[in-house]
Amino acid sequence: MNNFSFVNPTKIIFGKGQISQLATEIPSGKRVMITFGGGSVRSNSVYDQVKIALKNHFTVEFWGIEPNPDYETLLKAVIVAQENNVDFLLAVGGGSVLDGTKFISQAMSFNADPWKLVKNAQLCKPSVPVASVMTLPATGSEMNGRAVISYRAKKEKLAFMSEHMFPKFSILDPEVTYSLPTHQISNGVVDTFMHAMEQYMTYPAQAFLMDRWAEGILKTLTEIGEKVVKDHTNYDLMSNYMLCATMALNDFIGMGVPQDWATHRIGHDLTAVYGLDHAQTLAVLYPAFLKVTKAEKRDKLLQYAERVWEIKEKDPDKKIDAAIEQTEQFFRRVGLKTRLHEYQINDEAVEIVAERVLLRGIVYGEHKNIDADAVKKIIRLAL
Amino acid sequence: MNNFSFVNPTKIIFGKGQISQLATEIPSGKRVMITFGGGSVRSNSVYDQVKIALKNHFTVEFWGIEPNPDYETLLKAVIVAQENNVDFLLAVGGGSVLDGTKFISQAMSFNADPWKLVKNAQLCKPSVPVASVMTLPATGSEMNGRAVISYRAKKEKLAFMSEHMFPKFSILDPEVTYSLPTHQISNGVVDTFMHAMEQYMTYPAQAFLMDRWAEGILKTLTEIGEKVVKDHTNYDLMSNYMLCATMALNDFIGMGVPQDWATHRIGHDLTAVYGLDHAQTLAVLYPAFLKVTKAEKRDKLLQYAERVWEIKEKDPDKKIDAAIEQTEQFFRRVGLKTRLHEYQINDEAVEIVAERVLLRGIVYGEHKNIDADAVKKIIRLAL
Repeated sequence: MNNFSFVNPTKIIFGKGQISQLATEIPSGKRVMITFGGGSVRSNSVYDQVKIALKNHFTVEFWGIEPNPDYETLLKAVIVAQENNVDFLLAVGGGSVLDGTKFISQAMSFNADPWKLVKNAQLCKPSVPVASVMTLPATGSEMNGRAVISYRAKKEKLAFMSEHMFPKFSILDPEVTYSLPTHQISNGVVDTFMHAMEQYMTYPAQAFLMDRWAEGILKTLTEIGEKVVKDHTNYDLMSNYMLCATMALNDFIGMGVPQDWATHRIGHDLTAVYGLDHAQTLAVLYPAFLKVTKAEKRDKLLQYAERVWEIKEKDPDKKIDAAIEQTEQFFRRVGLKTRLHEYQINDEAVEIVAERVLLRGIVYGEHKNIDADAVKKIIRLAL
Repeated sequence: MNNFSFVNPTKIIFGKGQISQLATEIPSGKRVMITFGGGSVRSNSVYDQVKIALKNHFTVEFWGIEPNPDYETLLKAVIVAQENNVDFLLAVGGGSVLDGTKFISQAMSFNADPWKLVKNAQLCKPSVPVASVMTLPATGSEMNGRAVISYRAKKEKLAFMSEHMFPKFSILDPEVTYSLPTHQISNGVVDTFMHAMEQYMTYPAQAFLMDRWAEGILKTLTEIGEKVVKDHTNYDLMSNYMLCATMALNDFIGMGVPQDWATHRIGHDLTAVYGLDHAQTLAVLYPAFLKVTKAEKRDKLLQYAERVWEIKEKDPDKKIDAAIEQTEQFFRRVGLKTRLHEYQINDEAVEIVAERVLLRGIVYGEHKNIDADAVKKIIRLAL
């Protein structure tokens, strides 16, 4: 097991009817800016529940934080917050709204060009507290110090991370997810599965307990994934899905283990060039990625085949291939495509994506060996 | 899944050589009281490592916090802390030293009889920060807000819990456990196993992920338990054991699930009357306890048989009996006795322990149905 340090101070308030806790969780006297995305929270009662809970607080609303929250939108929110002397930020929505709100908090107390914060998270400091009412299980932002911010005018999309960006608390009521569109559930299941895989599918690091916990998330998703896509209104299923999403990216399964994240990074390029949703890129890339890296991931692939998919095949190579096939079929069963041609993306993508990787000059993966050549192989297999 | 709220702000610093981090984790200028148990930390280099790391801090030492830390000892420590204007407490030792130190912190800023804090944890407040260098994996105290304090003069031993008692940080270096006596490892393995069981072995609560995580701890312990008892100097094994101990009682596996804790409570009485170690009481009581409660725990016992012990028996009753038998044999394999007669305790214990339960007027278990009569049955089966 590798040395590690772990801390996660976010409070999770989970369950039916918990949005009402806002009334006491946000100290009285706080001047609250509530941030939203589009209008979906108006139609599923979340907006009303939030407003009722905060009826004795000063509140100002900022609407319109878009998916892949944009720097310029967020700067407008900073101005609204400052004009209203806001000292508490409440994000009501999915990962994008919350990521954006984490940035707003940091930018409010930063006296230089705030894009510098995104480029260099070391500049982050204790700032205006952020909390969330999470309506879309997927990114894990509700219990981590991460945010991904886009700057469309500069064609940039960057992730940054700081101990000062953990939400103070997050309220997770599985009932508010009942009205989500199906494709967002499909995306969320795959995103969650991949968050666990990126921390698990590397090489054996003698981290027996962390392996079991990652497998626990993966196994649970294989059991409930298809069901939550078909029926978003089963409380037990949605609550387990929501908890998996939070636990997959709050560092609980990452203690002392090597991590990969290559597929996430290549996926960002596919999104940038072709506009695919983040989860769509993962579902397309990962089966191909595993085929390319199966020699170096051999031991963990065998363990994954055994424990997550319960594959009894004796021949190890066939067992690994079966596990990769099961993974791809799982992505399809929960509603995502797994080949680029299904998105009308052809073999031009091989050079285009590899070029971006080459230009960036970074190699990916737990062995830092996923270079432009490896990316070409992966994209080719994903066609 | 039940509604729940979860927060755990403790930072964990894990791995080889991490005690040196004390130099920076404790802010400079802090006046530190270091608390210790007996002298074992002098012979295994922990004391030296701590003193070197804190060579630029003001430090005062308090020695002699005993197993089952005693109220009167701790009051002496409070006086030393106050006389030295201490504003940081560092516990170096096992769960007893840390539990005692959590109490010292609370008592330092409490202006009435501090035993009231133990009786009513609501009186706890933010106080002098506590941190730990954990040398004995077992109680989970290094990452929770719990403490168990004894008051020998009053024959009382009480657990209390507060959000204000989480350690600021805990340093876990598996290498410092190499010199532990074997019986402490045996006890620690069983204690950790039982912490997971108390949160897991109840009834199905549709908490799929939490079940998997509890099973992850249990399964890991079944794989490494015997090995760590035989050889305390294998880094990989000791680090997994240490991590299991912390994760079994930091609320990570307790989200939204019913909990039992009857065996722990009956065990406290066995300790009080017969002086058995805490883990010894658990190993004796639990197989008997499962036999008495197997009808109400039927579904979870079958799941446990399947997932933790991989028992393939078709007949459900035989499968459950086999799982209970495996549990008892596991306790024996890691070095603990599982019957009272092995401690020269005879059938007088039936009435003596049941009487204490009756007097206290509390019924135990996830169904609140473990009353004095049930306790009699359990003790009788444990003879």
